[in-house]
Amino acid sequence: MEATGVALNKLAELEEELEVVDKDVELFKLKKVQPIFKRRDKLLEDVPEFWKVVLSQHGDFGNYVRAGDLKYIDAIRKIDLVPLCLDDSSCDPRDFRITFYFDGIDGDFEGQEVSKVFKVCYDKSKVKFSREEDEDDYDEDLGFLTSEAVNIKWPKSYDWINPLKIEDKSSSEGKRNYRIGMKSFFAWFKWTGLKPRKEFPDGGGLASLLSEDIYPHCIKYYAEAQRDLVDETGDDEEVSDGPLQLDDVLLESMSDSENQHVIKKARK
Amino acid sequence: MEATGVALNKLAELEEELEVVDKDVELFKLKKVQPIFKRRDKLLEDVPEFWKVVLSQHGDFGNYVRAGDLKYIDAIRKIDLVPLCLDDSSCDPRDFRITFYFDGIDGDFEGQEVSKVFKVCYDKSKVKFSREEDEDDYDEDLGFLTSEAVNIKWPKSYDWINPLKIEDKSSSEGKRNYRIGMKSFFAWFKWTGLKPRKEFPDGGGLASLLSEDIYPHCIKYYAEAQRDLVDETGDDEEVSDGPLQLDDVLLESMSDSENQHVIKKARK
Repeated sequence: MEATGVALNKLAELEEELEVVDKDVELFKLKKVQPIFKRRDKLLEDVPEFWKVVLSQHGDFGNYVRAGDLKYIDAIRKIDLVPLCLDDSSCDPRDFRITFYFDGIDGDFEGQEVSKVFKVCYDKSKVKFSREEDEDDYDEDLGFLTSEAVNIKWPKSYDWINPLKIEDKSSSEGKRNYRIGMKSFFAWFKWTGLKPRKEFPDGGGLASLLSEDIYPHCIKYYAEAQRDLVDETGDDEEVSDGPLQLDDVLLESMSDSENQHVIKKARK
Repeated sequence: MEATGVALNKLAELEEELEVVDKDVELFKLKKVQPIFKRRDKLLEDVPEFWKVVLSQHGDFGNYVRAGDLKYIDAIRKIDLVPLCLDDSSCDPRDFRITFYFDGIDGDFEGQEVSKVFKVCYDKSKVKFSREEDEDDYDEDLGFLTSEAVNIKWPKSYDWINPLKIEDKSSSEGKRNYRIGMKSFFAWFKWTGLKPRKEFPDGGGLASLLSEDIYPHCIKYYAEAQRDLVDETGDDEEVSDGPLQLDDVLLESMSDSENQHVIKKARK
């Protein structure tokens, strides 16, 4: 019994050592990967509608936003994501800043560049819980993402659900529209992670999805989406408009073995 | 169009650079983690029935073996897992050797030590496919696990399904029993990965489960299993026999904050 107790104590210490190793590994990886991602992002500027294809075809992203948001998400020209720990060693490897570059849509939506910073927090006392059961979603050992609210210009067509434009928030219609607006991608920019149920739902989940899945694996998702389009339309059919133009581009360059490689990788 | 084609080609090259980084990261991690795992494995020798608790409580492990195998899996005293790339740079970071130390069961099962080596293979032509549709499960870019068959002494109670003991393999009963035996954990030791449908099913999946999940996270699974037992039995109930003794050990040492830490970690 005694030996077991001693062993269990030491095992708990080892688990903490393993956590430190996990952070070291994460940092090592970011340092290696970041310069490659920067070169990649530069190349992506030459691929028309890259993020439109990736975000509209991603299996999970669409679950976080309103269907009506997709039109404006299609207007994302570029996404930039930078881990903060490379310049600031006090930061967690999971801390990052993401910047969206939106193209404008005439008469409805102003082109803009919006950055948002996410940082891991380990102090649950900073969170204002309105329901006790929500506390389980926040783990002080593992940490949870938080962010500062940033401004984004909403599209005109969203005036009815834009929290700054709803005139009477106490009317039942005002309340309802406010709640709808809170579920919009635009409301995510105001998300802090400190007011569960009072802001965009699971904003941390969307942030992690972008930083851990979509941004690092965007080429894979792009190639997958292209492959699906190829499968849908058949190899030699002529297609006229929309994202299928991209398909043509890819089919054209697929005579080249390296592009087939992109496609092949995506099949994994 | 031209710029896009050039960009797509360069993106394919970048994806290959990222694959190299992934391997570097994996190697960096193994070098850091391996000495900690070795100290951990030494400590585990002082925790009675550690692997019995981990393997019997793991959510997925049981799906790979026959229910009847559990008795013999409970007899695993120790598991040792060594990545091969640390000593041999020609190996893939996923190559490993696993060793099981079985205690004997009187009159039925001989105590033994059995090692099996798994290596990633990228050459599909080595695989003898009996059905074309199985080929999709093997990816030459990603690689797939293979292994050499090793000997293990089967329990006496398994004579009826032990491929070496079935006298008439061409009778319908012989065939049936042979097929049942092929699904046993003992048949996994003969698994090569080169004869799909003719050997233990998805032996590579079981190998990956052990090397990527169960072995590295065994403390987490142990603590989870203990917590479940605490939840089931309540904190102050007296429990008499079986693995619940372990529960007592842990409850006893839980007055100590570091052990609560083990439990807490497991909740993640």
